[in-house]
Amino acid sequence: MTKKAIILLSGGLDSATVLAMMQDHGYAAHALSFSYGQRHSVELDAASKIAAHAGVAEHKVATIDLRLFGGSALTDDIAVPKDRDEASMAEDIPVTYVPARNTIFLSFALAYSEVVGADTIAIGVTALDYSGYPDCRPEYIRAYETMANLATKAGVTGEMPVNIATPLLDMTKAEIIRAGTDLGVDYSLTISCYDPDASGAACGHCDSCMLRRKGFGDAGVADPTRYQPG
Amino acid sequence: MTKKAIILLSGGLDSATVLAMMQDHGYAAHALSFSYGQRHSVELDAASKIAAHAGVAEHKVATIDLRLFGGSALTDDIAVPKDRDEASMAEDIPVTYVPARNTIFLSFALAYSEVVGADTIAIGVTALDYSGYPDCRPEYIRAYETMANLATKAGVTGEMPVNIATPLLDMTKAEIIRAGTDLGVDYSLTISCYDPDASGAACGHCDSCMLRRKGFGDAGVADPTRYQPG
Repeated sequence: MTKKAIILLSGGLDSATVLAMMQDHGYAAHALSFSYGQRHSVELDAASKIAAHAGVAEHKVATIDLRLFGGSALTDDIAVPKDRDEASMAEDIPVTYVPARNTIFLSFALAYSEVVGADTIAIGVTALDYSGYPDCRPEYIRAYETMANLATKAGVTGEMPVNIATPLLDMTKAEIIRAGTDLGVDYSLTISCYDPDASGAACGHCDSCMLRRKGFGDAGVADPTRYQPG
Repeated sequence: MTKKAIILLSGGLDSATVLAMMQDHGYAAHALSFSYGQRHSVELDAASKIAAHAGVAEHKVATIDLRLFGGSALTDDIAVPKDRDEASMAEDIPVTYVPARNTIFLSFALAYSEVVGADTIAIGVTALDYSGYPDCRPEYIRAYETMANLATKAGVTGEMPVNIATPLLDMTKAEIIRAGTDLGVDYSLTISCYDPDASGAACGHCDSCMLRRKGFGDAGVADPTRYQPG
């Protein structure tokens, strides 16, 4: 029987690469995206296109309302910072931090994994993230995995322990882009920008755009991103 | 400054008691309930009444769709078992098990705790539950707490580690009812039934009704539950 994996698919560059990697490892991919009151719902359109292009077994979109509690630039009215250098980005926890976001996302993935019988949940956290986001660090991921295997029938009985896979953890943005390009990822379908316009064009100046643009440059791969005019 | 606690409030007997206990310990209570596609939305009406009666600082209701994945009698069309003895209930993981439910609920509570600055999340799991539900056992709760303190800004910086409180863990149903009665809990506002009618009247025969009815009997407290006729 084909092994199944749940892939957290945001519509961004990283998770599109994780999806391709897991399929390359022989997994049937069950993609999971979230409609969580994010300002940029163009992400969800991107996720759907990426999932269709990759030929996933299934793509589910869970609706949750993280705005209920507030507390982040991605869901609130705090301004997204622009044109910061990498030192500033690494300095502290970014204002784009969403409280407990990965914990909530992984928890839905855990429910999904139990229902479809998936032995792996894959998430595209990277070393670049975990300088700023506590819930992207390796020690967090391992603690999540330990908890998850005490939380479910399949974990407790030992019938199917779940593995939290983080294939990008030690990769630079350029390495991710090279790996994905080799696996046929169409990065023109992905969107990384924290502040896109309604058409999905990227601002080019938020932290995420800056890292992405540099990544394509460092990888020596033509940047297919559609940027806003001006 | 008054300490704050997030209380997972289901509308049932156990969580209403936890709420009263935390308030008795001097906490300002931030109650959190879920609209999760449960068949018995009368639970949510009960939660609102309990929160109002207790005078909570705030009551939030998060809408999430656990039906997206299916897999449980509480959200699917599997029949709720009736008139089972306690030995049968304890035998295996009940069909009313919702995949990763407490993990999802605690994850929303974690986000909420970070936003309001609460140092405690209280959940009404009991020894009676953890014979059947993996995500009610003490080892699960401790693993969740470890993970939670790696997941958030306040946990990682040590500024405000979060404690998962389970004050009912070693209590019998009768002990819970006695403790809550002493603290002024109005159990007529609570609903435990897995299969209530539209008015909120209890079936009297599901596992939850059987345990509740026996609890009032053992506690020597008059059962205020409104049962369905016949």
